[in-house]
Amino acid sequence: MSVITIERKVLEKNDDVAATNRARFKKHGLFVFNLVSSPGAGKTSLLEAVVTRLKGRTAIGVVEGDVQTDLDAQRVAKLGVPAVQVITRGGCHLEAPLVRQAIEAMDLSKLKVLVIENVGNLVCPANYDLGEALKVVVLSTTEGDDKPLKYPAMFKNAQVLVINKVDLLPYVNCNIEQMKRNAREINPELLIFETSATTGAGIGAFCEWICSKAGCICA
Amino acid sequence: MSVITIERKVLEKNDDVAATNRARFKKHGLFVFNLVSSPGAGKTSLLEAVVTRLKGRTAIGVVEGDVQTDLDAQRVAKLGVPAVQVITRGGCHLEAPLVRQAIEAMDLSKLKVLVIENVGNLVCPANYDLGEALKVVVLSTTEGDDKPLKYPAMFKNAQVLVINKVDLLPYVNCNIEQMKRNAREINPELLIFETSATTGAGIGAFCEWICSKAGCICA
Repeated sequence: MSVITIERKVLEKNDDVAATNRARFKKHGLFVFNLVSSPGAGKTSLLEAVVTRLKGRTAIGVVEGDVQTDLDAQRVAKLGVPAVQVITRGGCHLEAPLVRQAIEAMDLSKLKVLVIENVGNLVCPANYDLGEALKVVVLSTTEGDDKPLKYPAMFKNAQVLVINKVDLLPYVNCNIEQMKRNAREINPELLIFETSATTGAGIGAFCEWICSKAGCICA
Repeated sequence: MSVITIERKVLEKNDDVAATNRARFKKHGLFVFNLVSSPGAGKTSLLEAVVTRLKGRTAIGVVEGDVQTDLDAQRVAKLGVPAVQVITRGGCHLEAPLVRQAIEAMDLSKLKVLVIENVGNLVCPANYDLGEALKVVVLSTTEGDDKPLKYPAMFKNAQVLVINKVDLLPYVNCNIEQMKRNAREINPELLIFETSATTGAGIGAFCEWICSKAGCICA
């Protein structure tokens, strides 16, 4: 009982800071999304493909969340966009105060789009508001079509599903139509994209959606 | 600070129950391992391959942990071995009291090997002792070779690493030798198997290891 009370307090505090983050993003007219998935679903590769396509067209920045290492921020920074790494040191998800700390190090007035790449975890990040406009969940074809049913909270709390690694469909036991049906059983409102960060398939459509939200021009 | 105190109490309680579970397993001469990985790394498929190979040779039982659904226990039970599903209803890892509850429903005196398949999560289950002899972490080639560095606690706390989906190596950006080096950088003592639950590659060697631990005959 006391644990639940304290958890609620932690979430309340998180939500207060998330509201402050959201107000700051709004002030700067920033479109912010929270990118979530299992480890290895391809969040960073997807982000590299998106940044490569959009960086000449809009001002995009990235906050990278990881349990350990700054490997991901290094990958994104190589593309010439602002990237800040948050290391949770064992923590299984990002929280709003960590994001607040990360954005202190960025000039938000120069950005139009901010992507927050969460820790790879299909469970815990579902319940934490960071101040983002919405959550984008990435699910790779190699994980199998049953995952939306087995990890429902994440698919319920996301507005967009990106099914990544579609280039591997011939080699894996995954029925993509069944995967989409399972996802829509949990959340009928999900907007779904099919991508491959490796071949570039579907990246254009996902970038167009980002631009439609950020008000930039995506040729 | 109070959160940390309560967390410590929760872990202490968990460890007490884990010790009780361990004593029960020992009484029955049972070899028990805790199977952990990201969602979709192939834990259940690996388990199906292992059960299919071992069920005529030793008495194997399974506890399945999932956030939601009993799909995995259904899959394993179809093979004709005892399987109990634990549904955590949002919980991101198994705890020792949940395992105690699950084994109440099993006749342990009839088993030689018990596999506890944890919730798919490469972060949180690392810190929870369930009473098992050891943790086996499954990492699929599709997740990328950097994962041991990014999720170190799991690789540090496991004794065995199974690199699964080796049949997909030609199609993914994964250097398996680098993956092994990264894993051994975190934990030099790791015993490593390379498997494909799809083609059957390496399943024999992994089963031989299980038999060497459980004292059964694996022809």
